[in-house]
Amino acid sequence: METRGSEIERRLKELGHVLPQPAAPIANYVPAVASGALLFISGQLPFGVDGKLASAHVGKIGAGVSEADAVRAAALSALNCLAQAQAALGDLGRIRRCVRLGGFINSAGDFVGLAGVMNGASDLMATALGPAGVHARSTVGVAQLPFGACVEVEAIFEIAP
Amino acid sequence: METRGSEIERRLKELGHVLPQPAAPIANYVPAVASGALLFISGQLPFGVDGKLASAHVGKIGAGVSEADAVRAAALSALNCLAQAQAALGDLGRIRRCVRLGGFINSAGDFVGLAGVMNGASDLMATALGPAGVHARSTVGVAQLPFGACVEVEAIFEIAP
Amino acid sequence: METRGSEIERRLKELGHVLPQPAAPIANYVPAVASGALLFISGQLPFGVDGKLASAHVGKIGAGVSEADAVRAAALSALNCLAQAQAALGDLGRIRRCVRLGGFINSAGDFVGLAGVMNGASDLMATALGPAGVHARSTVGVAQLPFGACVEVEAIFEIAP
Repeated sequence: METRGSEIERRLKELGHVLPQPAAPIANYVPAVASGALLFISGQLPFGVDGKLASAHVGKIGAGVSEADAVRAAALSALNCLAQAQAALGDLGRIRRCVRLGGFINSAGDFVGLAGVMNGASDLMATALGPAGVHARSTVGVAQLPFGACVEVEAIFEIAP
Repeated sequence: METRGSEIERRLKELGHVLPQPAAPIANYVPAVASGALLFISGQLPFGVDGKLASAHVGKIGAGVSEADAVRAAALSALNCLAQAQAALGDLGRIRRCVRLGGFINSAGDFVGLAGVMNGASDLMATALGPAGVHARSTVGVAQLPFGACVEVEAIFEIAP
Repeated sequence: METRGSEIERRLKELGHVLPQPAAPIANYVPAVASGALLFISGQLPFGVDGKLASAHVGKIGAGVSEADAVRAAALSALNCLAQAQAALGDLGRIRRCVRLGGFINSAGDFVGLAGVMNGASDLMATALGPAGVHARSTVGVAQLPFGACVEVEAIFEIAP
């Protein structure tokens, strides 16, 4: 019988997604902290399966990075949130739901299509988790992101004990 | 006898506020998610009672949007947080307190009066909820917001089961 | 016997840190709100022990504020988070762990070393709390901060009842 965790990975695979090797911060913080039933995931950049930021995902949307690439970067950042959750929980099946996503979009000042970019992350989460992937979210345009990434996504999941 | 929920609506009405029809996102996210005793409200823009962004609330503060208009926009964004809470809970009386507000201010680079703008949201919450409306908050100036709105406010409420 | 709270203060002191007098907001919000086992700390600016923003901590990193000063400002902002926690809890020993830090860096558009700046806050927290200080975090570059501060840090702590 398919477990919930392997169902989530299968759904992702069917869409061509592979969970990246989660990035390990080399500092006094960690990618994920659980407190009670909430799992807080650190802000994730759109690192690829190869652990690198693609050049298409570095820069500002509306000034170097296309909207389509930014949507893909948002999806990739959300995928990294799931990768970090799996690393923290051992099993994605322990996710009860995605409670909230925070989307930070590296915007040239006049680009206002932020919600459309963040839909890349929201759609990925709904694809992976089904109804449990539908979340609250905040989307804002920022002045810069670490390494010049075009998108950063943070997450809060509700988890089973 | 006046219920807690109708007391909150009366207080708002006395100040000329009407709860807007909450905006329904057309995407894979929702305006509000409850997890345990916490209700997470998605970032709300200053949509008016007519469901529209007033032109006075679009643009950057210090470059097109006046500080007074921005204060009103912050109050309106907070009002939309309450409208979303009511839609999610059925009754504003289930709010035990406002735990946290996050304020994102669309600032021209040299405008530093961000706290004064965000007071529009904080004052609205305290007006509506009384002592239960006094919250923790973070206020930051962002490079852009969805639809070019001048303010976005997100909320976390503690709710009764 | 040394209590947990005095151990935390001793560790800070050994590194030359003194908990600042926490800033009291003159508005309808408060520096800290507890809900269940979570303590939400409002975004803290790098106010010094004298309650003032040093001129070296006002402005944008990469345009007036040096990276080294920004790292110190991030540590100071984190220290203010602890000062607010102490004021709210009465005793830092009630902190079970630092769950999450949010770092907002006032960046000139081309400064991408945001993670290095935020390490100032993460290192302070780990110094003060030991293993319990290791947290999830999100770091973003913003367009402006209240009073033009170069850094703002918000925190969520897990607390003992």
